[in-house]
Amino acid sequence: MTAVASLSVPDNHGSDDKGKVPRAQTRSLKRGLAALDYVAVAGEVGVSDLATALHLPRASAHILLTTLLESGYVRQSGRRGRYRLDLQVLPLAHAVLKHMPVRERAAPLLHELASRTGQATYLAVLFRNQVINIDRIHPTPSPEARADLGQVNPAYASAMGKVLLAHLQPEELEEYLATIVLAPLTEQTITSVDTLRRELEEVGRRGYALSDGELRPRVRSVSAPVFSYDGNTVAAICALHSTPFGSPPDQTLIQAVIDTASHISYTLGYGAKPE
Amino acid sequence: MTAVASLSVPDNHGSDDKGKVPRAQTRSLKRGLAALDYVAVAGEVGVSDLATALHLPRASAHILLTTLLESGYVRQSGRRGRYRLDLQVLPLAHAVLKHMPVRERAAPLLHELASRTGQATYLAVLFRNQVINIDRIHPTPSPEARADLGQVNPAYASAMGKVLLAHLQPEELEEYLATIVLAPLTEQTITSVDTLRRELEEVGRRGYALSDGELRPRVRSVSAPVFSYDGNTVAAICALHSTPFGSPPDQTLIQAVIDTASHISYTLGYGAKPE
Repeated sequence: MTAVASLSVPDNHGSDDKGKVPRAQTRSLKRGLAALDYVAVAGEVGVSDLATALHLPRASAHILLTTLLESGYVRQSGRRGRYRLDLQVLPLAHAVLKHMPVRERAAPLLHELASRTGQATYLAVLFRNQVINIDRIHPTPSPEARADLGQVNPAYASAMGKVLLAHLQPEELEEYLATIVLAPLTEQTITSVDTLRRELEEVGRRGYALSDGELRPRVRSVSAPVFSYDGNTVAAICALHSTPFGSPPDQTLIQAVIDTASHISYTLGYGAKPE
Repeated sequence: MTAVASLSVPDNHGSDDKGKVPRAQTRSLKRGLAALDYVAVAGEVGVSDLATALHLPRASAHILLTTLLESGYVRQSGRRGRYRLDLQVLPLAHAVLKHMPVRERAAPLLHELASRTGQATYLAVLFRNQVINIDRIHPTPSPEARADLGQVNPAYASAMGKVLLAHLQPEELEEYLATIVLAPLTEQTITSVDTLRRELEEVGRRGYALSDGELRPRVRSVSAPVFSYDGNTVAAICALHSTPFGSPPDQTLIQAVIDTASHISYTLGYGAKPE
Protein backbone atom coordinates (compact mmCIF):
# COMPACT_ATOMS: atom_id res chain seq x y z
CA MET A 1 0.00 0.00 0.00
CA THR A 2 1.63 3.17 -1.14
CA ALA A 3 -1.01 5.78 -0.47
CA VAL A 4 0.58 7.00 2.76
CA ALA A 5 3.61 7.86 0.66
CA SER A 6 1.34 9.85 -1.65
CA LEU A 7 0.98 12.44 1.11
CA SER A 8 4.35 13.73 0.10
CA VAL A 9 3.24 14.24 -3.51
CA PRO A 10 2.87 17.99 -4.05
CA ASP A 11 -0.66 19.24 -4.67
CA ASN A 12 -1.34 19.36 -8.37
CA HIS A 13 -4.57 20.97 -9.37
CA GLY A 14 -4.37 20.10 -13.03
CA SER A 15 -4.62 22.59 -15.82
CA ASP A 16 -8.29 23.46 -15.95
CA ASP A 17 -9.24 24.33 -12.40
CA LYS A 18 -8.16 27.93 -12.75
CA GLY A 19 -7.35 28.22 -9.06
CA LYS A 20 -11.01 28.25 -8.03
CA VAL A 21 -10.73 25.48 -5.47
CA PRO A 22 -8.61 25.99 -2.37
CA ARG A 23 -5.59 23.73 -1.91
CA ALA A 24 -6.99 22.57 1.43
CA GLN A 25 -9.76 20.68 -0.31
CA THR A 26 -7.65 18.33 -2.33
CA ARG A 27 -5.24 17.95 0.58
CA SER A 28 -8.04 16.87 2.90
CA LEU A 29 -9.30 14.25 0.44
CA LYS A 30 -5.77 12.99 -0.09
CA ARG A 31 -5.28 12.70 3.65
CA GLY A 32 -8.64 11.00 4.08
CA LEU A 33 -7.70 8.36 1.50
CA ALA A 34 -4.31 7.89 3.15
CA ALA A 35 -6.17 7.45 6.45
CA LEU A 36 -8.34 4.73 4.87
CA ASP A 37 -5.27 2.90 3.60
CA TYR A 38 -3.63 3.22 7.01
CA VAL A 39 -6.68 1.82 8.82
CA ALA A 40 -6.76 -1.09 6.33
CA VAL A 41 -3.15 -2.01 7.07
CA ALA A 42 -3.29 -1.38 10.83
CA GLY A 43 -6.66 -3.12 11.34
CA GLU A 44 -7.73 -0.86 14.19
CA VAL A 45 -6.48 2.64 15.01
CA GLY A 46 -6.98 5.39 17.55
CA VAL A 47 -6.91 9.11 16.78
CA SER A 48 -3.34 9.45 18.07
CA ASP A 49 -2.07 6.55 15.96
CA LEU A 50 -3.44 8.17 12.83
CA ALA A 51 -2.11 11.61 13.79
CA THR A 52 1.37 10.13 14.24
CA ALA A 53 1.23 8.06 11.04
CA LEU A 54 0.11 10.96 8.84
CA HIS A 55 2.12 13.69 10.67
CA LEU A 56 -1.05 15.61 11.48
CA PRO A 57 -2.34 17.43 14.53
CA ARG A 58 -4.63 15.23 16.65
CA ALA A 59 -7.59 17.49 15.85
CA SER A 60 -7.10 17.01 12.11
CA ALA A 61 -6.82 13.23 12.49
CA HIS A 62 -10.02 13.29 14.52
CA ILE A 63 -11.87 15.18 11.80
CA LEU A 64 -10.69 12.75 9.14
CA LEU A 65 -11.95 9.79 11.17
CA THR A 66 -15.25 11.53 11.97
CA THR A 67 -15.84 12.26 8.30
CA LEU A 68 -14.97 8.67 7.31
CA LEU A 69 -17.34 7.48 10.04
CA GLU A 70 -20.25 9.61 8.82
CA SER A 71 -19.78 8.30 5.30
CA GLY A 72 -19.79 4.64 6.34
CA TYR A 73 -16.12 3.99 5.58
CA VAL A 74 -15.03 3.36 9.16
CA ARG A 75 -16.85 2.35 12.33
CA GLN A 76 -15.92 2.58 15.98
CA SER A 77 -15.43 -0.75 17.68
CA GLY A 78 -16.46 -1.28 21.27
CA ARG A 79 -12.97 -1.56 22.65
CA ARG A 80 -11.88 1.98 23.57
CA GLY A 81 -13.73 3.44 20.60
CA ARG A 82 -10.96 2.62 18.13
CA TYR A 83 -11.67 2.84 14.40
CA ARG A 84 -11.92 0.00 11.89
CA LEU A 85 -12.90 -0.09 8.23
CA ASP A 86 -16.62 -0.45 7.65
CA LEU A 87 -18.69 -2.12 4.96
CA GLN A 88 -19.02 0.83 2.58
CA VAL A 89 -15.80 -0.38 0.92
CA LEU A 90 -17.38 -3.71 -0.15
CA PRO A 91 -19.67 -2.34 -2.89
CA LEU A 92 -16.64 -0.49 -4.26
CA ALA A 93 -14.70 -3.75 -4.50
CA HIS A 94 -17.68 -5.41 -6.16
CA ALA A 95 -17.87 -2.60 -8.73
CA VAL A 96 -14.16 -2.96 -9.56
CA LEU A 97 -14.26 -6.72 -9.97
CA LYS A 98 -17.43 -6.62 -12.08
CA HIS A 99 -15.58 -4.61 -14.73
CA MET A 100 -12.46 -6.77 -15.12
CA PRO A 101 -12.84 -8.79 -18.34
CA VAL A 102 -9.76 -10.89 -17.51
CA ARG A 103 -11.54 -12.23 -14.43
CA GLU A 104 -14.52 -13.43 -16.47
CA ARG A 105 -12.33 -14.96 -19.15
CA ALA A 106 -9.98 -16.64 -16.70
CA ALA A 107 -12.59 -18.19 -14.41
CA PRO A 108 -13.58 -21.32 -16.39
CA LEU A 109 -9.96 -22.01 -17.33
CA LEU A 110 -8.71 -21.56 -13.77
CA HIS A 111 -11.43 -23.99 -12.70
CA GLU A 112 -10.31 -26.49 -15.26
CA LEU A 113 -6.70 -26.09 -14.12
CA ALA A 114 -7.73 -26.53 -10.47
CA SER A 115 -9.75 -29.67 -11.26
CA ARG A 116 -7.06 -31.17 -13.47
CA THR A 117 -4.14 -30.56 -11.11
CA GLY A 118 -5.95 -30.78 -7.77
CA GLN A 119 -4.26 -27.50 -6.78
CA ALA A 120 -5.66 -24.12 -5.77
CA THR A 121 -5.34 -21.60 -8.60
CA TYR A 122 -5.06 -17.81 -8.42
CA LEU A 123 -5.39 -14.77 -10.65
CA ALA A 124 -3.55 -11.55 -9.79
CA VAL A 125 -2.56 -8.19 -11.22
CA LEU A 126 0.26 -5.78 -10.49
CA PHE A 127 -0.86 -2.52 -8.89
CA ARG A 128 1.53 0.07 -7.50
CA ASN A 129 4.36 -2.44 -7.04
CA GLN A 130 2.17 -4.93 -5.25
CA VAL A 131 0.42 -8.06 -6.40
CA ILE A 132 -3.33 -8.02 -5.76
CA ASN A 133 -5.27 -11.30 -5.93
CA ILE A 134 -8.45 -10.88 -7.94
CA ASP A 135 -9.58 -14.50 -7.86
CA ARG A 136 -8.82 -17.81 -6.20
CA ILE A 137 -10.35 -21.14 -7.05
CA HIS A 138 -10.11 -24.33 -5.01
CA PRO A 139 -10.36 -27.75 -6.65
CA THR A 140 -12.82 -29.00 -4.04
CA PRO A 141 -15.38 -27.03 -2.04
CA SER A 142 -14.15 -26.50 1.48
CA PRO A 143 -14.50 -23.87 4.18
CA GLU A 144 -11.26 -22.37 2.90
CA ALA A 145 -12.44 -22.30 -0.69
CA ARG A 146 -13.52 -18.68 -0.62
CA ALA A 147 -11.80 -16.18 -2.87
CA ASP A 148 -9.12 -14.17 -1.09
CA LEU A 149 -10.04 -11.12 -3.07
CA GLY A 150 -7.97 -8.07 -2.55
CA GLN A 151 -5.14 -9.79 -0.72
CA VAL A 152 -1.95 -7.84 -1.32
CA ASN A 153 1.55 -9.32 -1.52
CA PRO A 154 4.91 -7.73 -2.36
CA ALA A 155 5.67 -8.43 -6.01
CA TYR A 156 9.31 -9.48 -5.50
CA ALA A 157 8.38 -12.34 -3.16
CA SER A 158 5.52 -13.87 -5.12
CA ALA A 159 5.60 -16.12 -8.21
CA MET A 160 2.84 -14.04 -9.82
CA GLY A 161 4.69 -10.88 -8.84
CA LYS A 162 7.91 -12.10 -10.48
CA VAL A 163 6.03 -12.92 -13.69
CA LEU A 164 4.45 -9.46 -13.74
CA LEU A 165 7.72 -7.68 -12.96
CA ALA A 166 9.53 -9.69 -15.65
CA HIS A 167 7.15 -8.26 -18.26
CA LEU A 168 7.39 -4.61 -17.24
CA GLN A 169 8.87 -2.13 -19.70
CA PRO A 170 12.65 -1.87 -19.01
CA GLU A 171 12.35 1.67 -17.60
CA GLU A 172 9.46 0.65 -15.33
CA LEU A 173 11.48 -2.28 -14.04
CA GLU A 174 14.52 -0.06 -13.40
CA GLU A 175 12.36 2.36 -11.43
CA TYR A 176 10.98 -0.54 -9.42
CA LEU A 177 14.44 -1.97 -8.70
CA ALA A 178 15.79 1.46 -7.78
CA THR A 179 13.13 2.12 -5.12
CA ILE A 180 12.04 -1.26 -3.75
CA VAL A 181 12.96 -2.41 -0.27
CA LEU A 182 13.45 -6.19 -0.39
CA ALA A 183 12.30 -7.14 3.08
CA PRO A 184 12.79 -10.85 3.86
CA LEU A 185 9.38 -12.49 4.40
CA THR A 186 10.90 -15.95 4.78
CA GLU A 187 14.42 -17.35 4.71
CA GLN A 188 13.95 -17.92 0.95
CA THR A 189 12.83 -14.41 -0.03
CA ILE A 190 15.13 -12.77 -2.59
CA THR A 191 16.69 -9.80 -0.82
CA SER A 192 19.36 -8.71 -3.32
CA VAL A 193 18.52 -6.48 -6.28
CA ASP A 194 21.12 -8.26 -8.42
CA THR A 195 19.69 -11.68 -7.65
CA LEU A 196 16.17 -10.40 -8.32
CA ARG A 197 17.27 -8.88 -11.64
CA ARG A 198 18.84 -12.18 -12.76
CA GLU A 199 15.77 -14.12 -11.60
CA LEU A 200 13.43 -11.80 -13.56
CA GLU A 201 15.55 -12.19 -16.71
CA GLU A 202 15.30 -15.95 -16.30
CA VAL A 203 11.51 -15.75 -15.71
CA GLY A 204 11.08 -13.60 -18.84
CA ARG A 205 13.15 -16.02 -20.91
CA ARG A 206 11.48 -19.26 -19.86
CA GLY A 207 7.94 -17.86 -19.55
CA TYR A 208 7.08 -18.91 -16.02
CA ALA A 209 8.10 -18.24 -12.42
CA LEU A 210 8.46 -20.50 -9.41
CA SER A 211 8.21 -19.52 -5.79
CA ASP A 212 9.88 -21.93 -3.42
CA GLY A 213 8.83 -20.67 -0.01
CA GLU A 214 9.72 -17.06 -0.82
CA LEU A 215 6.36 -15.59 0.17
CA ARG A 216 5.25 -18.03 2.89
CA PRO A 217 7.42 -20.70 4.46
CA ARG A 218 7.43 -23.95 2.50
CA VAL A 219 4.63 -22.87 0.12
CA ARG A 220 5.54 -23.48 -3.52
CA SER A 221 3.78 -22.15 -6.58
CA VAL A 222 4.10 -21.85 -10.37
CA SER A 223 3.00 -18.77 -12.29
CA ALA A 224 2.66 -17.74 -15.94
CA PRO A 225 1.63 -14.46 -17.62
CA VAL A 226 -1.67 -13.58 -19.29
CA PHE A 227 -1.44 -11.24 -22.30
CA SER A 228 -4.13 -9.07 -23.83
CA TYR A 229 -4.71 -8.70 -27.59
CA ASP A 230 -2.00 -6.00 -27.79
CA GLY A 231 0.70 -8.14 -26.17
CA ASN A 232 0.64 -6.32 -22.83
CA THR A 233 0.70 -8.44 -19.69
CA VAL A 234 -2.63 -7.91 -17.95
CA ALA A 235 -2.45 -10.52 -15.21
CA ALA A 236 -0.67 -13.61 -13.96
CA ILE A 237 -2.12 -16.95 -12.92
CA CYS A 238 -0.63 -19.38 -10.51
CA ALA A 239 -1.20 -22.83 -9.11
CA LEU A 240 0.06 -24.10 -5.81
CA HIS A 241 2.64 -26.80 -6.11
CA SER A 242 2.53 -29.55 -3.56
CA THR A 243 5.79 -31.36 -4.29
CA PRO A 244 8.12 -31.20 -1.29
CA PHE A 245 9.87 -27.92 -0.60
CA GLY A 246 13.28 -27.84 -2.28
CA SER A 247 12.66 -30.81 -4.62
CA PRO A 248 12.73 -30.42 -8.44
CA PRO A 249 9.64 -28.66 -9.78
CA ASP A 250 6.79 -30.66 -11.31
CA GLN A 251 7.20 -30.19 -15.08
CA THR A 252 3.67 -31.42 -15.81
CA LEU A 253 2.22 -28.78 -13.50
CA ILE A 254 4.43 -26.07 -15.01
CA GLN A 255 3.26 -27.00 -18.50
CA ALA A 256 -0.39 -27.02 -17.38
CA VAL A 257 -0.03 -23.51 -15.91
CA ILE A 258 1.66 -22.21 -19.06
CA ASP A 259 -1.01 -23.77 -21.29
CA THR A 260 -3.83 -22.34 -19.18
CA ALA A 261 -2.29 -18.86 -19.24
CA SER A 262 -1.91 -19.10 -23.06
CA HIS A 263 -5.51 -20.19 -23.36
CA ILE A 264 -6.73 -17.24 -21.25
CA SER A 265 -4.56 -14.91 -23.38
CA TYR A 266 -6.14 -16.41 -26.49
CA THR A 267 -9.65 -15.64 -25.19
CA LEU A 268 -8.46 -12.04 -24.74
CA GLY A 269 -7.39 -11.91 -28.39
CA TYR A 270 -3.67 -12.74 -28.05
CA GLY A 271 -1.73 -15.45 -29.82
CA ALA A 272 -2.80 -18.66 -31.51
CA LYS A 273 -5.55 -20.98 -30.40
CA PRO A 274 -4.05 -23.58 -28.02
CA GLU A 275 -4.44 -27.23 -29.01
CA MET B 1 -25.55 3.38 -1.53
CA THR B 2 -26.45 6.38 0.56
CA ALA B 3 -23.25 8.38 0.56
CA VAL B 4 -24.39 10.84 -2.10
CA ALA B 5 -27.21 11.77 0.23
CA SER B 6 -24.66 12.36 2.97
CA LEU B 7 -23.57 15.48 1.12
CA SER B 8 -26.59 17.19 2.58
CA VAL B 9 -25.54 16.31 6.12
CA PRO B 10 -24.30 19.51 7.76
CA ASP B 11 -20.62 19.63 8.60
CA ASN B 12 -20.02 18.45 12.13
CA HIS B 13 -16.53 18.91 13.40
CA GLY B 14 -17.02 17.06 16.65
CA SER B 15 -16.29 18.53 20.04
CA ASP B 16 -12.53 18.48 20.29
CA ASP B 17 -11.25 20.12 17.13
CA LYS B 18 -11.50 23.64 18.57
CA GLY B 19 -12.03 25.19 15.16
CA LYS B 20 -8.42 24.55 14.11
CA VAL B 21 -9.30 22.81 10.86
CA PRO B 22 -11.13 24.70 8.13
CA ARG B 23 -14.60 23.45 7.19
CA ALA B 24 -13.41 23.03 3.60
CA GLN B 25 -11.22 20.11 4.61
CA THR B 26 -13.90 17.83 5.94
CA ARG B 27 -16.25 18.93 3.13
CA SER B 28 -13.68 17.94 0.52
CA LEU B 29 -13.20 14.48 2.03
CA LYS B 30 -16.95 14.00 2.29
CA ARG B 31 -17.35 14.97 -1.36
CA GLY B 32 -14.47 12.72 -2.41
CA LEU B 33 -16.10 9.73 -0.70
CA ALA B 34 -19.44 10.60 -2.28
CA ALA B 35 -17.63 10.74 -5.63
CA LEU B 36 -16.22 7.25 -5.02
CA ASP B 37 -19.69 5.89 -4.26
CA TYR B 38 -21.07 7.61 -7.33
CA VAL B 39 -18.38 6.15 -9.59
CA ALA B 40 -19.07 2.68 -8.10
CA VAL B 41 -22.76 2.91 -8.95
CA ALA B 42 -22.34 4.59 -12.35
CA GLY B 43 -19.47 2.33 -13.48
CA GLU B 44 -17.79 5.03 -15.55
CA VAL B 45 -18.16 8.80 -15.24
CA GLY B 46 -16.93 12.01 -16.84
CA VAL B 47 -16.14 15.22 -14.99
CA SER B 48 -19.48 16.78 -15.99
CA ASP B 49 -21.48 13.76 -14.79
CA LEU B 50 -19.86 14.00 -11.38
CA ALA B 51 -20.30 17.77 -11.20
CA THR B 52 -24.02 17.36 -11.94
CA ALA B 53 -24.50 14.46 -9.53
CA LEU B 54 -22.80 16.21 -6.61
CA HIS B 55 -24.03 19.75 -7.45
CA LEU B 56 -20.47 21.03 -7.76
CA PRO B 57 -18.65 23.32 -10.18
CA ARG B 58 -16.90 21.38 -12.93
CA ALA B 59 -13.50 22.51 -11.63
CA SER B 60 -14.22 21.07 -8.17
CA ALA B 61 -15.39 17.76 -9.66
CA HIS B 62 -12.20 17.66 -11.71
CA ILE B 63 -10.06 18.15 -8.61
CA LEU B 64 -11.87 15.38 -6.75
CA LEU B 65 -11.29 12.97 -9.64
CA THR B 66 -7.65 14.02 -10.00
CA THR B 67 -7.04 13.45 -6.30
CA LEU B 68 -8.77 10.04 -6.41
CA LEU B 69 -6.66 9.21 -9.46
CA GLU B 70 -3.36 10.13 -7.77
CA SER B 71 -4.26 7.98 -4.78
CA GLY B 72 -5.09 4.90 -6.89
CA TYR B 73 -8.82 4.94 -6.20
CA VAL B 74 -9.89 5.69 -9.77
CA ARG B 75 -8.25 5.28 -13.17
CA GLN B 76 -8.99 6.80 -16.55
CA SER B 77 -10.17 4.35 -19.14
CA GLY B 78 -9.18 4.73 -22.77
CA ARG B 79 -12.59 5.70 -24.04
CA ARG B 80 -12.78 9.51 -23.79
CA GLY B 81 -10.74 9.52 -20.59
CA ARG B 82 -13.70 8.67 -18.40
CA TYR B 83 -13.09 7.57 -14.81
CA ARG B 84 -13.61 4.12 -13.27
CA LEU B 85 -12.82 2.73 -9.84
CA ASP B 86 -9.31 1.33 -9.54
CA LEU B 87 -7.77 -1.49 -7.56
CA GLN B 88 -6.85 0.44 -4.42
CA VAL B 89 -10.31 -0.43 -3.07
CA LEU B 90 -9.59 -4.18 -3.11
CA PRO B 91 -7.16 -4.28 -0.18
CA LEU B 92 -9.72 -2.28 1.80
CA ALA B 93 -12.36 -4.91 1.12
CA HIS B 94 -9.91 -7.63 2.08
CA ALA B 95 -9.19 -5.86 5.39
CA VAL B 96 -12.91 -5.57 6.21
CA LEU B 97 -13.69 -9.20 5.46
CA LYS B 98 -10.68 -10.47 7.39
CA HIS B 99 -12.10 -8.98 10.58
CA MET B 100 -15.66 -10.34 10.43
CA PRO B 101 -15.90 -13.25 12.87
CA VAL B 102 -19.34 -14.24 11.57
CA ARG B 103 -17.80 -14.97 8.16
CA GLU B 104 -15.27 -17.38 9.66
CA ARG B 105 -17.86 -19.09 11.83
CA ALA B 106 -20.42 -19.37 9.07
CA ALA B 107 -18.15 -20.72 6.31
CA PRO B 108 -17.99 -24.43 7.26
CA LEU B 109 -21.70 -24.53 8.06
CA LEU B 110 -22.69 -22.76 4.84
CA HIS B 111 -20.55 -25.32 3.01
CA GLU B 112 -22.31 -28.15 4.73
CA LEU B 113 -25.69 -26.60 3.87
CA ALA B 114 -24.65 -26.15 0.23
CA SER B 115 -23.43 -29.76 -0.02
CA ARG B 116 -26.49 -31.18 1.74
CA THR B 117 -29.09 -29.24 -0.25
CA GLY B 118 -27.25 -28.86 -3.55
CA GLN B 119 -28.08 -25.14 -3.47
CA ALA B 120 -25.90 -22.03 -3.48
CA THR B 121 -25.75 -20.47 -0.01
CA TYR B 122 -25.14 -16.84 0.97
CA LEU B 123 -24.20 -14.77 3.99
CA ALA B 124 -25.22 -11.11 4.20
CA VAL B 125 -25.47 -8.19 6.60
CA LEU B 126 -27.63 -5.08 6.72
CA PHE B 127 -25.74 -1.85 6.14
CA ARG B 128 -27.39 1.51 5.65
CA ASN B 129 -30.71 -0.02 4.56
CA GLN B 130 -29.08 -2.30 2.04
CA VAL B 131 -28.13 -5.95 2.14
CA ILE B 132 -24.45 -6.60 1.43
CA ASN B 133 -23.33 -10.12 0.54
CA ILE B 134 -20.24 -11.07 2.49
CA ASP B 135 -19.98 -14.67 1.30
CA ARG B 136 -21.40 -17.05 -1.27
CA ILE B 137 -20.71 -20.76 -1.49
CA HIS B 138 -21.58 -23.04 -4.38
CA PRO B 139 -22.19 -26.76 -3.84
CA THR B 140 -19.98 -27.70 -6.79
CA PRO B 141 -16.97 -25.88 -8.19
CA SER B 142 -17.94 -24.07 -11.35
CA PRO B 143 -16.88 -20.93 -13.17
CA GLU B 144 -19.73 -19.14 -11.39
CA ALA B 145 -18.69 -20.40 -7.96
CA ARG B 146 -16.79 -17.27 -7.02
CA ALA B 147 -17.96 -15.22 -4.07
CA ASP B 148 -20.07 -12.22 -5.09
CA LEU B 149 -18.55 -10.21 -2.30
CA GLY B 150 -19.84 -6.74 -1.81
CA GLN B 151 -22.91 -7.15 -3.98
CA VAL B 152 -25.58 -4.78 -2.70
CA ASN B 153 -29.33 -5.38 -2.86
CA PRO B 154 -32.26 -3.38 -1.50
CA ALA B 155 -33.33 -4.95 1.81
CA TYR B 156 -37.09 -4.92 1.12
CA ALA B 157 -36.73 -7.09 -2.01
CA SER B 158 -34.38 -9.76 -0.68
CA ALA B 159 -35.10 -12.74 1.59
CA MET B 160 -32.00 -11.93 3.69
CA GLY B 161 -33.05 -8.29 3.74
CA LYS B 162 -36.51 -9.15 5.03
CA VAL B 163 -35.01 -11.30 7.79
CA LEU B 164 -32.68 -8.49 8.84
CA LEU B 165 -35.43 -5.84 8.72
CA ALA B 166 -37.76 -8.09 10.74
CA HIS B 167 -35.22 -8.11 13.57
CA LEU B 168 -34.57 -4.37 13.72
CA GLN B 169 -35.55 -2.45 16.84
CA PRO B 170 -39.14 -1.12 16.37
CA GLU B 171 -37.97 2.50 16.09
CA GLU B 172 -35.29 1.55 13.53
CA LEU B 173 -37.88 -0.30 11.47
CA GLU B 174 -40.30 2.66 11.61
CA GLU B 175 -37.56 4.98 10.40
CA TYR B 176 -36.79 2.57 7.57
CA LEU B 177 -40.45 2.26 6.56
CA ALA B 178 -40.93 6.03 6.74
CA THR B 179 -38.10 6.80 4.34
CA ILE B 180 -37.75 3.83 1.98
CA VAL B 181 -38.77 4.02 -1.67
CA LEU B 182 -40.11 0.59 -2.66
CA ALA B 183 -39.06 0.48 -6.30
CA PRO B 184 -40.36 -2.62 -8.14
CA LEU B 185 -37.39 -4.75 -9.23
CA THR B 186 -39.64 -7.49 -10.60
CA GLU B 187 -43.38 -7.98 -10.86
CA GLN B 188 -43.24 -9.75 -7.47
CA THR B 189 -41.39 -7.06 -5.50
CA ILE B 190 -43.34 -5.76 -2.51
CA THR B 191 -44.11 -2.11 -3.26
CA SER B 192 -46.58 -1.23 -0.47
CA VAL B 193 -45.37 -0.25 3.00
CA ASP B 194 -48.42 -1.93 4.59
CA THR B 195 -47.74 -5.20 2.79
CA LEU B 196 -44.06 -5.03 3.72
CA ARG B 197 -44.93 -4.35 7.37
CA ARG B 198 -47.24 -7.39 7.50
CA GLU B 199 -44.66 -9.54 5.71
CA LEU B 200 -41.96 -8.53 8.21
CA GLU B 201 -44.25 -9.34 11.18
CA GLU B 202 -44.83 -12.76 9.65
CA VAL B 203 -41.08 -13.27 9.04
CA GLY B 204 -40.32 -12.31 12.65
CA ARG B 205 -42.96 -14.70 13.98
CA ARG B 206 -42.03 -17.76 11.94
CA GLY B 207 -38.27 -17.20 11.95
CA TYR B 208 -37.50 -17.31 8.24
CA ALA B 209 -38.20 -15.38 5.04
CA LEU B 210 -38.92 -16.49 1.51
CA SER B 211 -38.33 -14.56 -1.67
CA ASP B 212 -40.40 -15.71 -4.60
CA GLY B 213 -38.96 -13.77 -7.52
CA GLU B 214 -39.01 -10.47 -5.62
CA LEU B 215 -35.36 -9.59 -6.23
CA ARG B 216 -34.71 -11.29 -9.57
CA PRO B 217 -37.37 -12.79 -11.83
CA ARG B 218 -38.21 -16.39 -10.91
CA VAL B 219 -35.33 -16.73 -8.42
CA ARG B 220 -36.53 -18.18 -5.09
CA SER B 221 -34.64 -18.27 -1.83
CA VAL B 222 -35.04 -19.04 1.88
CA SER B 223 -33.35 -17.01 4.61
CA ALA B 224 -32.93 -17.23 8.39
CA PRO B 225 -31.26 -14.92 10.94
CA VAL B 226 -27.91 -15.37 12.71
CA PHE B 227 -27.71 -14.07 16.28
CA SER B 228 -24.68 -13.12 18.30
CA TYR B 229 -24.18 -14.02 21.99
CA ASP B 230 -26.20 -10.96 23.07
CA GLY B 231 -29.25 -11.83 20.98
CA ASN B 232 -28.63 -9.18 18.34
CA THR B 233 -29.05 -10.17 14.70
CA VAL B 234 -25.62 -9.95 13.10
CA ALA B 235 -26.28 -11.51 9.71
CA ALA B 236 -28.65 -13.59 7.64
CA ILE B 237 -27.98 -16.69 5.62
CA CYS B 238 -29.90 -17.90 2.62
CA ALA B 239 -30.07 -20.81 0.24
CA LEU B 240 -31.44 -20.71 -3.26
CA HIS B 241 -34.60 -22.72 -3.69
CA SER B 242 -35.00 -24.53 -6.97
CA THR B 243 -38.62 -25.66 -6.72
CA PRO B 244 -40.72 -24.08 -9.47
CA PHE B 245 -41.62 -20.42 -9.07
CA GLY B 246 -45.01 -20.05 -7.37
CA SER B 247 -45.20 -23.65 -6.04
CA PRO B 248 -45.33 -24.43 -2.29
CA PRO B 249 -41.97 -23.88 -0.57
CA ASP B 250 -39.74 -26.83 0.23
CA GLN B 251 -40.19 -27.44 3.96
CA THR B 252 -37.08 -29.61 4.20
CA LEU B 253 -34.96 -26.82 2.74
CA ILE B 254 -36.56 -24.24 5.06
CA GLN B 255 -35.76 -26.42 8.07
CA ALA B 256 -32.16 -26.95 6.89
CA VAL B 257 -31.65 -23.18 6.55
CA ILE B 258 -33.15 -22.52 10.01
CA ASP B 259 -30.99 -25.27 11.57
CA THR B 260 -27.83 -23.96 9.92
CA ALA B 261 -28.53 -20.39 11.07
CA SER B 262 -29.11 -21.67 14.63
CA HIS B 263 -25.87 -23.61 14.48
CA ILE B 264 -23.92 -20.53 13.34
CA SER B 265 -25.58 -18.50 16.12
CA TYR B 266 -24.51 -21.18 18.60
CA THR B 267 -20.88 -20.90 17.48
CA LEU B 268 -21.19 -17.15 18.17
CA GLY B 269 -22.35 -17.85 21.72
CA TYR B 270 -26.12 -17.65 21.26
CA GLY B 271 -28.71 -20.26 22.20
CA ALA B 272 -28.51 -23.99 22.79
CA LYS B 273 -26.26 -26.43 20.97
CA PRO B 274 -28.23 -27.79 18.00
CA GLU B 275 -28.73 -31.55 17.88
